[in-house]
Amino acid sequence: MILTVTLNAALDVTYEVGALERGESHRVGVVRERAGGKGINVARVARALGCEVTATGFAGGVVGELIRDDLRGSGIVHDFVTVSGTSRRTLTVVETESGEATVLNEAGPRVLPEEWRAFLGHFGALAASASVVVLSGSLPPGVPVDAYAELARLAPGRVVLDADGTALTEGLRGRPDVVKPNADELTRATAAGRPVAERAGELRDAGAGTVLVSLGADGMLAVTPDGVWRAVPPEVVVGNPTGAGDAAVAATARALLLGRPWDELVRDAVALSAAAVAAPVAGDFDPDLYVRLLPEIAIEGLSCPS
Amino acid sequence: MILTVTLNAALDVTYEVGALERGESHRVGVVRERAGGKGINVARVARALGCEVTATGFAGGVVGELIRDDLRGSGIVHDFVTVSGTSRRTLTVVETESGEATVLNEAGPRVLPEEWRAFLGHFGALAASASVVVLSGSLPPGVPVDAYAELARLAPGRVVLDADGTALTEGLRGRPDVVKPNADELTRATAAGRPVAERAGELRDAGAGTVLVSLGADGMLAVTPDGVWRAVPPEVVVGNPTGAGDAAVAATARALLLGRPWDELVRDAVALSAAAVAAPVAGDFDPDLYVRLLPEIAIEGLSCPS
Repeated sequence: MILTVTLNAALDVTYEVGALERGESHRVGVVRERAGGKGINVARVARALGCEVTATGFAGGVVGELIRDDLRGSGIVHDFVTVSGTSRRTLTVVETESGEATVLNEAGPRVLPEEWRAFLGHFGALAASASVVVLSGSLPPGVPVDAYAELARLAPGRVVLDADGTALTEGLRGRPDVVKPNADELTRATAAGRPVAERAGELRDAGAGTVLVSLGADGMLAVTPDGVWRAVPPEVVVGNPTGAGDAAVAATARALLLGRPWDELVRDAVALSAAAVAAPVAGDFDPDLYVRLLPEIAIEGLSCPS
Repeated sequence: MILTVTLNAALDVTYEVGALERGESHRVGVVRERAGGKGINVARVARALGCEVTATGFAGGVVGELIRDDLRGSGIVHDFVTVSGTSRRTLTVVETESGEATVLNEAGPRVLPEEWRAFLGHFGALAASASVVVLSGSLPPGVPVDAYAELARLAPGRVVLDADGTALTEGLRGRPDVVKPNADELTRATAAGRPVAERAGELRDAGAGTVLVSLGADGMLAVTPDGVWRAVPPEVVVGNPTGAGDAAVAATARALLLGRPWDELVRDAVALSAAAVAAPVAGDFDPDLYVRLLPEIAIEGLSCPS
């Protein structure tokens, strides 16, 4: 089983308007609502790939209930810890005339110390039967900065960490099996002025087993204990890049679950990531494009297995 | 008792951001939520004035529950009919740097024919013990265009109608005691190219007993069965004009309840309306400013009582 953790789960709300004009009043045409947050996106993709998956994290208030309702409707097994605060919403205002998207992110509720302690017990019980644990996204207010290290240490299975800033750097102390920064996240987490492969090596030195650097249209660089691989997609896919990283993480979790070799993992992650860009909503992917791209991903081994 | 009707009640959500930039991602600093819609604003002001008031209308889904929760928290007696759809939200994005406000209005749920029939029975029972009924705001999808005429006919007490477009013009067939258009609403509801007093007379010809035209900083024109009055505030109040018309309606409802003469009614409506502009949120008013302005409103009788 894959267990995904979303400590800062959200209800993703989308408003469609003709054009957004500052200072004006707008009639909202279409309203869409869906459970979101990076770990929930990973769970959606992993489930669509046929994996057994459970989503956990914090949920609270009426927005938390809407998150649970949506997961139930989507057939995603979930077991969230209830917090006293109300879960956050993220609002995306999409302009139908131009396609421009403006995003407004609520902060999310403050997690109380006793709620965090309750989560540690809850997570421990779920992680005991998970082969792979995925830790994704930002930490809500009130959660310790080394939260991901603490969770990684409690997980007996493999651990994938996808985070930014101190949530990533402090999380490395928990020695996750895989971290998946994008280029910006890698830049923020490492010393300035060094090439990507060396920066990835820094994260390995700090505790990560393998570092998968997602490079957008340029594919992925994998710095693993068994060598370095570079995977490049055959074409640039135009669309919505939100959720592409989550698709790569879902592919990674499945490959770890199935014990696939690194080159196969990276190929799969790059194909699924590109297929996610082609889908308008984070957590979805274009299955036809995925199947078509998979054999066309160029894989290059940059150093021999040690 | 004053009964306020809000057929298209809303949860008014306010997001504070530094500056709103199209196409960018924003962190929302403060989130505020409050029950809204014109009739609910009238109920808030009437209650603050010490009147016995009941708010009714339609509410549905989780947003409807939040509307009810907020009314309960505000101590406003309410008795809404539950609809199968989910009540709408209105979002105001306020920029803390400039004060600029951008508004996004959801459409609201479609009311089913059987839900409208249920409302008519519910309203009839409440209106039987109401001395004044206030009908305010837009009509939700699914409600007949002459909804306000139907409700006005069912009310044994006095009726105040505050609506726009066909909701207003069709509502006149129910012969409301008072209608309160602003200048734009009066323009839309009447023939082009005539002075305000003549346009107000047109609404009386079409069924309104008295027409109160709210003129913003220029005060109010009252065309009544007993003569015409003009009331002008002593100063221009700077602030948020949203809700100023609702305050004028609340003053009107109270004056009808207490049987006050028209000149006194108009003075009160103009003072309370200006005091509402000074309050940042619709449904509130500045009580000190209200008391200070009240004796300073200039009242002019434009024609003798007939």
